[in-house]
Amino acid sequence: MNRVSHAENVPLMLMHGKYERETLLKDLLAGAVVAIMLIPQSLAYALLAGLPAEMGLYASIVPLVAYALIGSSRTLSVGPVAVISLMTAAALGDVASQGTADYATAATALALLSGAMMVIMGCLRFGFLTNFLSHSVVSGFITAAGVLIALSQLRHILGIDAAGGTAPALLASLAGNLSALNATTLVIGAGSVLWLVWSRVRLAALIEKLGTSKSLAAIAAKAAPLMVVIATAAASGLFGLESKGVAIVGEIPSGLPAFSVPLFNLDLWASLWVPALLISVIGFVESVSVGKTLAAQSQDRINPNRELIALGAANLGAAVSSGFPVTGGIARSMVNHDAGAATQMASIFAALGITLATLFLTPALYYLPKATLAATIVVAVSTLLNIRAVKRAWLYSRTDFIAITLTILVTLLLGVELGVLSGIVASVGLHLYKTSKPHVAVVGAVPGTEHYRSVNRHQVVTYPSLLSLRVDESLYFVNTSFLETCIEQAVADSPGLEHVILQCTAVNEIDLSALEVLEQLDLRLTASGIQLHLSEVKGPVMDALQRYGFPEQLSGEVFLTHHQAVSRLKPDLIEPYIP
Amino acid sequence: MNRVSHAENVPLMLMHGKYERETLLKDLLAGAVVAIMLIPQSLAYALLAGLPAEMGLYASIVPLVAYALIGSSRTLSVGPVAVISLMTAAALGDVASQGTADYATAATALALLSGAMMVIMGCLRFGFLTNFLSHSVVSGFITAAGVLIALSQLRHILGIDAAGGTAPALLASLAGNLSALNATTLVIGAGSVLWLVWSRVRLAALIEKLGTSKSLAAIAAKAAPLMVVIATAAASGLFGLESKGVAIVGEIPSGLPAFSVPLFNLDLWASLWVPALLISVIGFVESVSVGKTLAAQSQDRINPNRELIALGAANLGAAVSSGFPVTGGIARSMVNHDAGAATQMASIFAALGITLATLFLTPALYYLPKATLAATIVVAVSTLLNIRAVKRAWLYSRTDFIAITLTILVTLLLGVELGVLSGIVASVGLHLYKTSKPHVAVVGAVPGTEHYRSVNRHQVVTYPSLLSLRVDESLYFVNTSFLETCIEQAVADSPGLEHVILQCTAVNEIDLSALEVLEQLDLRLTASGIQLHLSEVKGPVMDALQRYGFPEQLSGEVFLTHHQAVSRLKPDLIEPYIP
Repeated sequence: MNRVSHAENVPLMLMHGKYERETLLKDLLAGAVVAIMLIPQSLAYALLAGLPAEMGLYASIVPLVAYALIGSSRTLSVGPVAVISLMTAAALGDVASQGTADYATAATALALLSGAMMVIMGCLRFGFLTNFLSHSVVSGFITAAGVLIALSQLRHILGIDAAGGTAPALLASLAGNLSALNATTLVIGAGSVLWLVWSRVRLAALIEKLGTSKSLAAIAAKAAPLMVVIATAAASGLFGLESKGVAIVGEIPSGLPAFSVPLFNLDLWASLWVPALLISVIGFVESVSVGKTLAAQSQDRINPNRELIALGAANLGAAVSSGFPVTGGIARSMVNHDAGAATQMASIFAALGITLATLFLTPALYYLPKATLAATIVVAVSTLLNIRAVKRAWLYSRTDFIAITLTILVTLLLGVELGVLSGIVASVGLHLYKTSKPHVAVVGAVPGTEHYRSVNRHQVVTYPSLLSLRVDESLYFVNTSFLETCIEQAVADSPGLEHVILQCTAVNEIDLSALEVLEQLDLRLTASGIQLHLSEVKGPVMDALQRYGFPEQLSGEVFLTHHQAVSRLKPDLIEPYIP
Repeated sequence: MNRVSHAENVPLMLMHGKYERETLLKDLLAGAVVAIMLIPQSLAYALLAGLPAEMGLYASIVPLVAYALIGSSRTLSVGPVAVISLMTAAALGDVASQGTADYATAATALALLSGAMMVIMGCLRFGFLTNFLSHSVVSGFITAAGVLIALSQLRHILGIDAAGGTAPALLASLAGNLSALNATTLVIGAGSVLWLVWSRVRLAALIEKLGTSKSLAAIAAKAAPLMVVIATAAASGLFGLESKGVAIVGEIPSGLPAFSVPLFNLDLWASLWVPALLISVIGFVESVSVGKTLAAQSQDRINPNRELIALGAANLGAAVSSGFPVTGGIARSMVNHDAGAATQMASIFAALGITLATLFLTPALYYLPKATLAATIVVAVSTLLNIRAVKRAWLYSRTDFIAITLTILVTLLLGVELGVLSGIVASVGLHLYKTSKPHVAVVGAVPGTEHYRSVNRHQVVTYPSLLSLRVDESLYFVNTSFLETCIEQAVADSPGLEHVILQCTAVNEIDLSALEVLEQLDLRLTASGIQLHLSEVKGPVMDALQRYGFPEQLSGEVFLTHHQAVSRLKPDLIEPYIP
């Protein structure tokens, strides 16, 4: 449990006189490790988004610095991530063709829009809006996005052409072009995948055996992607693999990104605002969940609205430096954390590392096979598949299971944007549907206590002239007609009734629609010689009822406790029914 | 309270050997009264919908019979109504020009679509979908529609041209053409309004003074609209008012409507399905609320899904007999009921009356001024304005007030379709927003009882090592992060804490998102040496928790009652704090 003061949320680097030599060394090491990991990853995610490789590098410089200055997490690392890159590709595919200048312009516009939306939402304290995404929808979406990403990268590993934004389209496209498979590319791609999978499991242990400390070995093992990049680029250059049909990255312009304010383009913005909003929401939710995980490990706390502003600034940073949408990534943040990052200075060092790579390393990447980059993506997204979440939902609740399954299916079959939207609509709709048919229990006293529970589940005391009903839901327009039918039915089933007491322990709101139904119900019950009472009405609900004058017009009374109501209204001469 | 059996829901006319002479006479009288009232009304609503006058008559024949055969209300009277006619005009204005054959074709297509939708919704038992319309949205919408209808009819009363689907457009159009005002038309229109208003208030009393019984006088007074129709048509014909610029109804083809199956027209249907859906929903809600009011007066009960099918059949009937969308109307149903209708045979007699009028009366309507019909509409819709509902919402609840005000404003300023939609979205959104920030109370025992209430509102007993929290809302994805922050804050504010007990009386659901938050919270509390307990978990919620194995993994216990939890966990040596 976090009991530290809020002042500690300020990144340490911003606090005077506290940034000491030891912290500096830790951050420097973490920054270097993250930079080494980010170089291949940022190239790969640019490829996934359909953009030139250098834009991946650009998106890993200014955004890191922007987040470092504003963000509330000490170890979150920002940059291009798989899911957001996939969403970027889906959004841009609708407005321009890959490889054109318009496509790259649209990418910066998308970063600009989602950045601006995040900053505005953060300033308006709209962080709560992301609450409308349930965990089930998020994990379903990320799982399905992982599958789509892996499918979209298969073409680079097989050396064939394929395109599409949905699983059936990608599969059909891959199957149709399978005859054009390039064996050399497949060897490089599959070999890289095998190396990366093996290195994940074994490399650290092997390095440790060579005599280094366990923690150093773990850090060194993070260089596995860089090693395969260097090895395959070298092989590709030495053996002239390009002439054997292996697609290579080609010329990457060296030097710093061009800084420019994106052009004002209302038409483009009009067609990008919906995907930009979805990218903002998904990016924010993903980043905050990473941030919360990290914070829990370090007794830290993150501030959602400040995170929105920081991520917005990171995206605006991407927009002005020829980048594309970014957010906080789980893998890089865990590496940063595990490498010992103490403050956001680590991210600034990482940005410096990427800058150096951009300035001096790009010529060396000329011969790098695209298959290698695709392999790093495929291995990275394998961790996104969360089958356990589907199992848990199946086990726990039908509505969560419907939400997660629907999100996965719609994302795979109809694409990322409809996937997120249908998930949100399904979660909200299912919740409303559930509240439209609330659980209503006839209750009686648990013998020897003042506690009232359902007659169906407990051995309780009841009286024939007295009907105690507990409605397990707020009374509002969605369930008023169900409520009406339900109470009328219960009354019809209880001959000899004199009192109906609604126990309102679970009623957190009575809206005007429900109040009108209660008024009419009271009139009809009174006409049948039955009084309507309420018990255990909560403070805020009672305030509203009193403002309206409802307690005065009610035929019965409003009791503080249900036990008081039953004690007062129960017949004196008739013995209670005790089971 | 209704305790009659369901068998009695079947209209009496359908039960063998029960339709006696007395009932027949009652129904015959009621049918005649309704027919007399419907003749001017159906012409007027056709005018409001922008359709030829005879279509109003056609829409008052087959639909009445269709409803009579299927519907579950004994006295509901179906036909063209003001709000649905306005919505029809709004929908058709987007696809065709008034006065063209396409416009009339579109009107039957609209009846076909909304009829089919209603039948399908009824068969799928989707009656509950209309629950998403709160009373506030419905009364706001109907009030605003009443204003729009009155504004749209002013042009006929003033004898000028005007058009528009929103209040500003109508007002601007009226103001712009005011110089073309026709004095003769205004005299007829304003005179008709005055007569109708006066006759509503005084005519029955006057007829009674002439020596008839009170009930007969009340029925006779319903002929006031027909009287003004006859009087103004006679004046118009005798004095040749058409030549003085008074717009008249003109030639109405006599004879029965042409029966035809509407053409299959996918393009037209594609542009009409949204308004058709809105017309279905609003028509159903309006009709069911009328039906419920009537049922309450006659110890009757209506069946929503059967009503959907019956209203759907009525609209399909309108579609095949050159009509336009219909539903159950409040005014005609009350007249039917008050005139003594005992069964739906009354509606069949009314349909017969309209048929006779269609066959023989139409030549007499040639000279009828349109201003007279507009006057009957203006007076009829004045009863739709429900300012009291706005006042009640203001008094009772902020969210209901926002919903009703928004619905009224959007309907007036942007039109009927956006008005309904924004009302629905606002009601659902406001409800979710409210549940996203639930009321959380620290509770303690009310001295001398086993009842626990908020420390802020009651004098209660608490212990420093024991925090009792009652969350007044279901725990689900919309409020998980609020809940997390809230509990963490409460814990941080309570030094020396050993136990946190969540009293779950108001928790009607714990979804998977919330369960994951509880799991993490429990881990963090345990790390701080604090146990998490639950109390008074409801049966259905407990079932799900047990399926998941949550009670076993929880650091603390799940108690049946909150009092048991406190009794077990309270420190023995420390005196409780009793205020």
